[in-house]
Amino acid sequence: MENGKALVLLSGGLDSTTTLAIAKEKGFTAYALSFRYGQRHKIEIESAQRVAKQLGVADHRIIDIDLRSFGGSALTSDIEVPKGRLPEEMSSEIPVTYVPARNTIFLAYALAWAEVLKSSDIFIGVNALDYSGYPDCRPEFISAFQDLANLATKAGVERSTKVVIHAPLIHLTKAEIIRKGTELGIDYAITTSCYDPSPLGEACGLCDSCQLRRKGFVEARIADPTRYRISRVSA
Amino acid sequence: MENGKALVLLSGGLDSTTTLAIAKEKGFTAYALSFRYGQRHKIEIESAQRVAKQLGVADHRIIDIDLRSFGGSALTSDIEVPKGRLPEEMSSEIPVTYVPARNTIFLAYALAWAEVLKSSDIFIGVNALDYSGYPDCRPEFISAFQDLANLATKAGVERSTKVVIHAPLIHLTKAEIIRKGTELGIDYAITTSCYDPSPLGEACGLCDSCQLRRKGFVEARIADPTRYRISRVSA
Repeated sequence: MENGKALVLLSGGLDSTTTLAIAKEKGFTAYALSFRYGQRHKIEIESAQRVAKQLGVADHRIIDIDLRSFGGSALTSDIEVPKGRLPEEMSSEIPVTYVPARNTIFLAYALAWAEVLKSSDIFIGVNALDYSGYPDCRPEFISAFQDLANLATKAGVERSTKVVIHAPLIHLTKAEIIRKGTELGIDYAITTSCYDPSPLGEACGLCDSCQLRRKGFVEARIADPTRYRISRVSA
Repeated sequence: MENGKALVLLSGGLDSTTTLAIAKEKGFTAYALSFRYGQRHKIEIESAQRVAKQLGVADHRIIDIDLRSFGGSALTSDIEVPKGRLPEEMSSEIPVTYVPARNTIFLAYALAWAEVLKSSDIFIGVNALDYSGYPDCRPEFISAFQDLANLATKAGVERSTKVVIHAPLIHLTKAEIIRKGTELGIDYAITTSCYDPSPLGEACGLCDSCQLRRKGFVEARIADPTRYRISRVSA
């Protein structure tokens, strides 16, 4: 199957890496977009670069955006990242690691670049099941952004092809995502999910993102190639 | 009338300045947000600073965003800014000065800051009548963004107060905007609308934005305080 150009939001984590592999499997020529947004886990960007290189993209842009100046999140300020929460404890409330309007900003930039590239397909690795309770990971958010995209742009107004926001992981469990990505040949060792990695890139193993990732590998019955900096807590 | 905090997108042009004055008239404490987005007309930012100071805001943030790296617009690349078009010639097509997804990106940042400030009110000076045919200035775009905003954020999910995107100029003519702003005491000499100003800040008088502005002052029967760098063409 051959398709046109696709814009893929790539953080370098497990979900976005799998999403990139899916876009390529569907026959799209992939353009990857990553952000330096003042996140603590800058090591993400290095993962994104490794992933873009290993999976193969037509272009990879890294955009600097300053969300730190607004504050309001544990990922971009000095609020402490919560540790050791079980996945079932996570979805009860929106956590402090939520970054205000982050996916809205990321998708807005993706829309801008997609328009310049004359691409109508944007991929984002959001997930509504094994996620951390972020409002901008829900299907209704993705659907609302797609509506907006088709009103916001010259392409949406002039072209018959409509902008589609693809969220291929949205209804998958973390284990299903890992199985899918493994089928597609992803080496998850090159991805980074941790909110609080060591300077060497070792994962903490205990933040929400690590806990979800570890549980996902366990449930997928696939060995977890992640390097954790602390001794492994039984999942 | 007293109200809460409002986030106002402020370019330093005629429309956004009037919008700021309207937000203040409605009793909001105003927070102004401006962008350096690689636009040719950087003098805009100085205007925004003058306006924020003169009208009075609680805080004014200027965010650097790099739309230039994507290209695709006469305002952020070397494509020539069209000159001498009459307002009635403008709305027939989307012009080259359109910046891909610009208002989507601006509103996304505004939403992020509004959320941190616990503000539910965002003001944007878009105008659907005397405008240049931009898709992201239409009422349906504003409405779609408001829907998105209420799905995108922690505030939208947890609070009973819903995010409102105020576009008070959307159904006004340029002349009506100028009359309204003049009633509110705005000195339009401190604002900049030109897409291609001289280094000293003199307006070209002939780009779409200048043509619309000049026509607006004529129709409002209010003297135009703008400094134009070329001899005035009769409007």
